[in-house]
Amino acid sequence: MNKRYFVGVDLGGTYIKFGIVSDKGEVSYKGMLSAQARLGRDVVRDNLLRSVKQALQAAKVKKTKITGIGTGSPGTVNQITGRIEGSSPNIPEMVNVNLRQWLSKPFGLPVCVDNDANVMALAESKFGAAKGFSNALCITVGTGIGGGIILNGKLFHGSNFAGAEFGHMTICHNGRKCNCGGIGCLEMYASAPAMVKDAKRLLKTDKRSIIRSLVEGDLSRLTTKVLFAAEKKGDRLASQVIDQASAYLGAGIASAVNLLNPQVVVIGGGVSQGGASFIRRIDREVKRRAFPSATRHLKVVRAKLGNDAGFIGAAILCAQANR
Amino acid sequence: MNKRYFVGVDLGGTYIKFGIVSDKGEVSYKGMLSAQARLGRDVVRDNLLRSVKQALQAAKVKKTKITGIGTGSPGTVNQITGRIEGSSPNIPEMVNVNLRQWLSKPFGLPVCVDNDANVMALAESKFGAAKGFSNALCITVGTGIGGGIILNGKLFHGSNFAGAEFGHMTICHNGRKCNCGGIGCLEMYASAPAMVKDAKRLLKTDKRSIIRSLVEGDLSRLTTKVLFAAEKKGDRLASQVIDQASAYLGAGIASAVNLLNPQVVVIGGGVSQGGASFIRRIDREVKRRAFPSATRHLKVVRAKLGNDAGFIGAAILCAQANR
Repeated sequence: MNKRYFVGVDLGGTYIKFGIVSDKGEVSYKGMLSAQARLGRDVVRDNLLRSVKQALQAAKVKKTKITGIGTGSPGTVNQITGRIEGSSPNIPEMVNVNLRQWLSKPFGLPVCVDNDANVMALAESKFGAAKGFSNALCITVGTGIGGGIILNGKLFHGSNFAGAEFGHMTICHNGRKCNCGGIGCLEMYASAPAMVKDAKRLLKTDKRSIIRSLVEGDLSRLTTKVLFAAEKKGDRLASQVIDQASAYLGAGIASAVNLLNPQVVVIGGGVSQGGASFIRRIDREVKRRAFPSATRHLKVVRAKLGNDAGFIGAAILCAQANR
Repeated sequence: MNKRYFVGVDLGGTYIKFGIVSDKGEVSYKGMLSAQARLGRDVVRDNLLRSVKQALQAAKVKKTKITGIGTGSPGTVNQITGRIEGSSPNIPEMVNVNLRQWLSKPFGLPVCVDNDANVMALAESKFGAAKGFSNALCITVGTGIGGGIILNGKLFHGSNFAGAEFGHMTICHNGRKCNCGGIGCLEMYASAPAMVKDAKRLLKTDKRSIIRSLVEGDLSRLTTKVLFAAEKKGDRLASQVIDQASAYLGAGIASAVNLLNPQVVVIGGGVSQGGASFIRRIDREVKRRAFPSATRHLKVVRAKLGNDAGFIGAAILCAQANR
């Protein structure tokens, strides 16, 4: 059978990543635009349309026929209606947008939509680190903490598309208030902003850390990337922050493992770029905390598809729906 | 089609409950024996065999043909091999027992085994509070906190029979050490022993509570039943303990709801006998903490089948396997 091609779009609070993807998961083109989510939903819409146009333009040049458009977005995404039903705390202005209508009208192509972490999980499950496993948890750690659950080889959506919100498991019963309205959510302890915040707090009473010199005295430039770099150079404060975040992540994942008993946990998102030692520390904590019968064969691994996972998964979603 | 009948057995740390159950869920006979788990596995085995004999004897008297035996047990139960692979902290001596062999050799009938909370969930799903819902979480709160997950109308077992351990979700990251080896597990905060322990601790500095007089000065007689009775009479200390336990339970359930987005959460086990106000408090906390998109249609209800759920579910398990 001939290959079919899809445009995949990964809408994030900061960037829109997109590409042309075959139904075998091959990427023949990719691009990125700023989402400018803080400027409101009309701007997001314009940027989204520009992204798809750019991809379709590239397809025209390559003489590639596009069969459909797949999109991943933060929030609770109703796959059937195409509407975003629940807010993502990190891009709230999208609630009640009908994402499918936004894209199907201008382009006249079939449009599939799903949660961004779900499509990432789908991509990792078909072509990445969860390939070959029928039960997998995929967790993205970045500005927020999201996730996707693969059960019996398929994306699990819950009863009304609201599942897999790993970042909003209670990890500290009387802990930090979360943007979602919850208390002590994992996201408040182990997302990139949480790590940066913790580092800044510790820096107030620390004189030895090299972090200040790495950001040339400008703490607004402090990112998890800087933290991982500082740790590599032996910085203790950075180590402490990363240790703490991996301990929290490990505890949250252990809870999910005790519930769902998957074969593999895949960790992606910006923070997972912290490298092998970060994943190892999370793995150790998961195995220390979860039931031995649930972890005996469990693998905790880093995502393979990196920043492309979202748009690849979005495209595959559309490929699956339009066979 | 004629009805078929099964013996269902619910093995607990304290009691073995058993009965004769039709494949339509009707109970035509039931009994109970002490498990005497603390006397070791040989005693448990003898008591288990006595239970089944008693049920088969009753079947003979009623001229009921028994098609098979279903058993629920604490721990990680491998449905395929029949072996208990992982420990339940509350009845550790059963690990590595092949429960199916224990029962199939002496009685020459097909034997099905599963985790005790799983079979309770199956019973509630087929004939109880989760009937008619395809996605349900069932949680038992008693000596321990267990659970069963129904997805697409079927019991979900995870990759190697180790899922649905609600009691061992981390709820306090640096909290109480759990018998399972974990830290801050829900079971350490909201099980019956945890509630009794919390009450005893508070009683040390409290002069007003009526609990002491309810147990006639003997705090070893303090149970959750006493706590609920004291609360009904307006006892503040009892209220405080029950409030706290429901808040912890609500937070744990909210985490699971954010992951699995079920249609209904069923709460069973001894502590659920606390009544409607206990369930209402848990419900309120779940809805306060979990994602609105996950709780919009969510029902949190009390189990319907009470103490019979375990053996009914065990029997139904066997009915499903021997159609």
